[in-house]
Amino acid sequence: MIEADLLIHSAAQVVTCASDVPKRGTAMQDVGLISNGAVVVKDGRILTLGPSQSIRQQYSAAQTIDASGKLVCPGFVDPHTHVVFAGDRLGEFEQRIRGATYLEIMAAGGGIVSSMRATRAASVEALVGATLPRLAQMLRLGTTTAEVKTGYGLDLDSELKMLEAIAALDLAQPIDLVPTFMPAHAVPPEFNGRSAAYIEWVINEMIPAAAAWYRNSHFVEKGYPLFCDVFCEQNAFDLDQSRRVLEAGIAHGLPAKIHADEFTSLGGVGLAVELGAVSVDHLDATTPADAARLAQSDVVGIVLPAVNFNLGSHDFADARGLIDAGAVIALSTDINPGSAPCPSQPLVMALATRYQRLLPAEALNAATINAAFGVGLADRVGSLAPGKQADLLLVNATDYRQLAYQFGGNLVDGVVKNGRLLSHSITK
Amino acid sequence: MIEADLLIHSAAQVVTCASDVPKRGTAMQDVGLISNGAVVVKDGRILTLGPSQSIRQQYSAAQTIDASGKLVCPGFVDPHTHVVFAGDRLGEFEQRIRGATYLEIMAAGGGIVSSMRATRAASVEALVGATLPRLAQMLRLGTTTAEVKTGYGLDLDSELKMLEAIAALDLAQPIDLVPTFMPAHAVPPEFNGRSAAYIEWVINEMIPAAAAWYRNSHFVEKGYPLFCDVFCEQNAFDLDQSRRVLEAGIAHGLPAKIHADEFTSLGGVGLAVELGAVSVDHLDATTPADAARLAQSDVVGIVLPAVNFNLGSHDFADARGLIDAGAVIALSTDINPGSAPCPSQPLVMALATRYQRLLPAEALNAATINAAFGVGLADRVGSLAPGKQADLLLVNATDYRQLAYQFGGNLVDGVVKNGRLLSHSITK
Repeated sequence: MIEADLLIHSAAQVVTCASDVPKRGTAMQDVGLISNGAVVVKDGRILTLGPSQSIRQQYSAAQTIDASGKLVCPGFVDPHTHVVFAGDRLGEFEQRIRGATYLEIMAAGGGIVSSMRATRAASVEALVGATLPRLAQMLRLGTTTAEVKTGYGLDLDSELKMLEAIAALDLAQPIDLVPTFMPAHAVPPEFNGRSAAYIEWVINEMIPAAAAWYRNSHFVEKGYPLFCDVFCEQNAFDLDQSRRVLEAGIAHGLPAKIHADEFTSLGGVGLAVELGAVSVDHLDATTPADAARLAQSDVVGIVLPAVNFNLGSHDFADARGLIDAGAVIALSTDINPGSAPCPSQPLVMALATRYQRLLPAEALNAATINAAFGVGLADRVGSLAPGKQADLLLVNATDYRQLAYQFGGNLVDGVVKNGRLLSHSITK
Repeated sequence: MIEADLLIHSAAQVVTCASDVPKRGTAMQDVGLISNGAVVVKDGRILTLGPSQSIRQQYSAAQTIDASGKLVCPGFVDPHTHVVFAGDRLGEFEQRIRGATYLEIMAAGGGIVSSMRATRAASVEALVGATLPRLAQMLRLGTTTAEVKTGYGLDLDSELKMLEAIAALDLAQPIDLVPTFMPAHAVPPEFNGRSAAYIEWVINEMIPAAAAWYRNSHFVEKGYPLFCDVFCEQNAFDLDQSRRVLEAGIAHGLPAKIHADEFTSLGGVGLAVELGAVSVDHLDATTPADAARLAQSDVVGIVLPAVNFNLGSHDFADARGLIDAGAVIALSTDINPGSAPCPSQPLVMALATRYQRLLPAEALNAATINAAFGVGLADRVGSLAPGKQADLLLVNATDYRQLAYQFGGNLVDGVVKNGRLLSHSITK
């Protein structure tokens, strides 16, 4: 018998989502099912997995979990979040219900700048304290890796404070956090009408400072990147500004991500493909030509249907069409105080299956292995395969399709992070 | 000092939702806020509530809860559910994503008849066992009272088996269940093309048998009604059949509820008003004339937006228009395996605020006090007021609007049922 640390056996299904390459096309419909399966964990990593009976003949472990009546799947990866912020946007939420337009909300002090004010005013301790319960909710709902962006600071000190909060949060709780630097999230009030000047400041001062911060952070040792992101959109930053920000990031060792085609198609998809960005996110207004361009690349298209839901919209990104075109598609919450106060990847899967016509298998691959490719960490997380981090979920269901079929509740019964079963006091 | 059993104090908000009459019009925008509030409980009932400081000077209790940083609100009432069923409808869910029509799904053995087959084949023990985890999820999400319908049996033995399951479940777990008899949910296969004959059977055999069952059930002692419901819809039962079912129910002491206007307006609202039904449910296709008729009555209009969501629909009942017309509106999950696999009243509130333009206050009143009127139990539950059942929630938020603003997670931190704080092993 081979000795291991943890042996989970008799799961109705072990759902691996395994793939060495980003999933696209019909591969999205394959979740790598093992019926009556087992997973063996040693030193925080998956040692092996397979049919329960044969695994149990070969392996024993210090801790054994009988997963009868449950399924085991990879922990979710949430590849696009703005989970670090202060304040809330409740007033704006009510204004919108009463029929206020985006511009009226902005005029009343709402929008990103509202979160910016609260975030600038908060200490790093306050930011960490406000974010911890949100991450705890995400963990309960099965997220074990999440990207987190800056972009509510919009000045050097505040953006660095956000990076500091992200680093502290990564060390303080179980979800692995992948940092993204995004000072070009909006034009701050002190640069009103002078977005060009702000971009110069971002390129010449902020990105170099963030790169220096990163080199001294624990993320280097962890082997995690610091991404650089930009909001390419009307009323935010145009294509040329976006290119300059991302090229400056790349020059300083920060791989690119981009917010593109949320409302208007400015060419962000082409830029992402040209620069070899890790992901291009939103894609609500993507043209068929850009969908074809994306499909020819390994850039991950991240769609964010919780945003459309939150706005009470009837229009969603054409994720079905993007998958059919051959693009690599991932799902994410975009959790943020304005457009998506939603911690749940399962609810995003529920949305994608209803309003974007993804099959449950496609939604699950999009929230796990493809999401891991979307943060450049698919060698470590996003699927169950030997050698990978043992980040996995025990789910109260015997069919993986339940994860997208049921909505509003939480089928996650237990979370194993780096091979350790988190106690219910942490996950519940 | 007056001695009590439980004193909850220092809540950022105590949200009472109190009203002696069904809320309508601008009363829906008032949730009865007490800032820095306290609630005192004795013998399972609310003794008093008010500002924390004055309450603490007058009352002491065996158990004290410091609710700083939290809010306290009534447990949710879910006034329309089909939570007792066997089987699932996962195949149908995938068929719909692939573009199958309702008729194609029916032809492939899907729809209500699919749940009927599984429910008929299940023992009462199996039905109870399958339902308990669903009720546990609802409880975790804050539901403390729920109506539950039969209607997946569609023959005498199976419908009585469902009533037996509902009674056992009411006794076996914390949520108070209100039973509804609904053999006229669909025409069973053995009566295919003979709905008139089935209705005769329902009226002459099933309703009398259910009334007899009820008289010997514990619900009589509890003071709970047995409702009688009918699906008034094309391809289900027409207006005249619906009238005959509900009148037979009333004649046997079963107050009326009705499914009306889900797809087509057959006059069910007028029938509900005429018969003094407790509620009329769905209202997706309700005409302005019927909305006005409803507004002149105390019949509660129950809207079910999780159904529209589940079908990926862009059309929702015009709950905003119904409230503005003066109707009494409540919200419910309609949890069922086909059209709404959703246990969460908070998610329904999130839907109503986004897709039906209800304010957070309106959504909360609709899921509490008005929902209690919708099951005829507003004298006991649905609000925080002296003498009422102490069914209340401790919520991880300091502003009640968060309950509808956030979606997909669960802000409910603790559930007090009949004055007893349920342990986390029950609620989590």
